[in-house]
Amino acid sequence: MSVTTEHQTFERIYAEVQQFYARHIQLMDEGRAEEAAMTFTEDASLVSPPKITEPVRGRAKLAAGLRKAADELDAEGIRYRRCHTMMTVEPQPDGRLAVRAYVQVVRTRRGGEAKLHAMCVCEDVLVREDGELKVHRRVVTRDDCL
Amino acid sequence: MSVTTEHQTFERIYAEVQQFYARHIQLMDEGRAEEAAMTFTEDASLVSPPKITEPVRGRAKLAAGLRKAADELDAEGIRYRRCHTMMTVEPQPDGRLAVRAYVQVVRTRRGGEAKLHAMCVCEDVLVREDGELKVHRRVVTRDDCL
Amino acid sequence: MSVTTEHQTFERIYAEVQQFYARHIQLMDEGRAEEAAMTFTEDASLVSPPKITEPVRGRAKLAAGLRKAADELDAEGIRYRRCHTMMTVEPQPDGRLAVRAYVQVVRTRRGGEAKLHAMCVCEDVLVREDGELKVHRRVVTRDDCL
Repeated sequence: MSVTTEHQTFERIYAEVQQFYARHIQLMDEGRAEEAAMTFTEDASLVSPPKITEPVRGRAKLAAGLRKAADELDAEGIRYRRCHTMMTVEPQPDGRLAVRAYVQVVRTRRGGEAKLHAMCVCEDVLVREDGELKVHRRVVTRDDCL
Repeated sequence: MSVTTEHQTFERIYAEVQQFYARHIQLMDEGRAEEAAMTFTEDASLVSPPKITEPVRGRAKLAAGLRKAADELDAEGIRYRRCHTMMTVEPQPDGRLAVRAYVQVVRTRRGGEAKLHAMCVCEDVLVREDGELKVHRRVVTRDDCL
Repeated sequence: MSVTTEHQTFERIYAEVQQFYARHIQLMDEGRAEEAAMTFTEDASLVSPPKITEPVRGRAKLAAGLRKAADELDAEGIRYRRCHTMMTVEPQPDGRLAVRAYVQVVRTRRGGEAKLHAMCVCEDVLVREDGELKVHRRVVTRDDCL
């Protein structure tokens, strides 16, 4: 698509990051594990206590974890939706993007009620690969565990 | 205002779409039924199960439905707020915009508690008429009905 | 940083406003009272019934109130997160920005559950000082008090 340069405007970067998260999270939440894994870098790491206290490292392990979780949730008839808001985007000198956002995690059981499951903060480092934004590092913290 | 061309930047489109939804939903939620109806095209259709399983077609019918719902909610002292997040905006070859977003529907009774009423996904086709974005087609799905 | 002119594009303004709120609210919610106070103008006013029915006027009073609230919440092990969505940004002829947004206030007790505490609307007037956006006037209303 467009050639990515270091000279993008802030408004361009901010819109791209918002669109990236929307696609990325929709893939994550809707059980499209293999496509979701491609929105992480090959060497990505993810930590999200209390469930994931030891960092998951690498796209292959992430993909496997996402697949397993998606299958379990599907069997149980549960859907999670991660609603990111209040997103700060800080371009770094090396071109990476530091992104920090609030995340309301909503859990709905088929035929049941939607429930606010957890309030989190998601701190990511995004990089570009062939013009596409990808998550290089993610640290999620939950307000109830602070 | 500005002349709308096919050569708008993505950042422009994304900001316009966000502003459009903010105005549109505030009108919808605050009982301004006639103004809200004008944010749909004359031939708009809307489907939103389980309440609206047969598509409502046309601005006149939409306006009537919005007016009725607004009056009932006002009489009951209930306010709904639809909080859209995680919005993907995909410009189509014909200039239309495919928009997909998460929607947390929050319900508050006057003197009561705010409650997460439903978690939905809203899939719209937006078009421009005289430079103004309008909803041409809307399909809302609820996670509890999947 | 950049020189601020009256000729900014809408997409620039909208992205800047989103980034401003993300930083501002993160400071507010995370008990960084003195930094949060600097995101208001020296002569700012804030009203937020039912807790704050008489307008708080001036940055010094705001800072003191934010410090006191932060200390109390910290002692109780409570974290509030204000999730702004559906934000309209209306540039005014004098260069000020009228901003109106939905706010889901989420409350989490350490070791407890996250809970939707209140659904609000936040109406702000933002101004620029030395290129930085700041809140000049804030009126928050709660849906349960309408």
